[in-house]
Amino acid sequence: MGKVIWHTTLSLDGFIAGPGGRMEWINGHSGPPPELFRAIVESLGAVLAGRRTYDEGISAVGGKVYNGAFSGPLFVLTHRPPGHPDPAVTFTGGDIREVMQTVREAAEGRDVAVLGADTARQCLDAGLVDELVVHLVPALLGDGVRLFDSAGEDWIDLSATSLETSGDLANLRYRVGPRRSPTGDRPAALRPR
Amino acid sequence: MGKVIWHTTLSLDGFIAGPGGRMEWINGHSGPPPELFRAIVESLGAVLAGRRTYDEGISAVGGKVYNGAFSGPLFVLTHRPPGHPDPAVTFTGGDIREVMQTVREAAEGRDVAVLGADTARQCLDAGLVDELVVHLVPALLGDGVRLFDSAGEDWIDLSATSLETSGDLANLRYRVGPRRSPTGDRPAALRPR
Repeated sequence: MGKVIWHTTLSLDGFIAGPGGRMEWINGHSGPPPELFRAIVESLGAVLAGRRTYDEGISAVGGKVYNGAFSGPLFVLTHRPPGHPDPAVTFTGGDIREVMQTVREAAEGRDVAVLGADTARQCLDAGLVDELVVHLVPALLGDGVRLFDSAGEDWIDLSATSLETSGDLANLRYRVGPRRSPTGDRPAALRPR
Repeated sequence: MGKVIWHTTLSLDGFIAGPGGRMEWINGHSGPPPELFRAIVESLGAVLAGRRTYDEGISAVGGKVYNGAFSGPLFVLTHRPPGHPDPAVTFTGGDIREVMQTVREAAEGRDVAVLGADTARQCLDAGLVDELVVHLVPALLGDGVRLFDSAGEDWIDLSATSLETSGDLANLRYRVGPRRSPTGDRPAALRPR
């Protein structure tokens, strides 16, 4: 069975976008290495994107995912499908486990990419994310859309599987580990699959 | 003249400490490589720490900075010096530029390390930080003390000077660049030195 990969660009201080989704801060920095980019895209059988990512990062650039390199099934998680439906997209909502089940079936055994912080957080909370691939950009934003927002003292442990650099970018790949707390490990989220 | 180096441990999602300054999340992960650690400490002529870093990371561990590897002048930025003075520390406050001038003089031409997010932000705002050294730990905290908090659309551009890995840690060194905004570069902060 394929993996669920949360794939994102990230500022050094933990933002995936500036205020209002602005992305000018990535300009002037290296892009991800073409081999890594190609390897990820070729592993994918489906993509699950958040509504903000769809509106600002996919629909706004001609409906292209991964600059057009990915042409498989695209699902967008939203409570309010747009008035003008996009025939290339399946708008979906409801229980995140059921949504992911549908997306995984569409992926036909290949990997699923999750794009967007809010969608990724829902998947993380449900224990549905296997890996996290981050392209770390040298910028301090101080404000914007955070990679991960979750109140309280517990944290999610990661284990590094690949740490590479390309130009001024750090390309980091992690396996998502258990949720931990200062008073001991918490039981992992139920993994119904 | 020595450089001012903001030196910190960081979670992948941009926190230097958990809620209440908790640091259990670094346990079980690699430490910084000894050569890099030694090179930084040997370059230092003085350390400027924030009050929280002093209380929780220095005073609480027997007054040791860098596990005792650094024994030079230690300054702590605070508006409220502790009731029981620490003879090994100079408590200081007021205009951050004047504070840094004093710390630099104590460093006698060697580098200055800045420890603590709030102190670093004040130094950054005044254009006083030359470099940022980060040990990036594979954990998602979601809550705690943020590396950098600054409202608005502008950001600080960094340029990578060294990106290395050791175990599951990414050790990243950046030169601090200009403050930018979506509508063009903003003038850099005054640099009175």
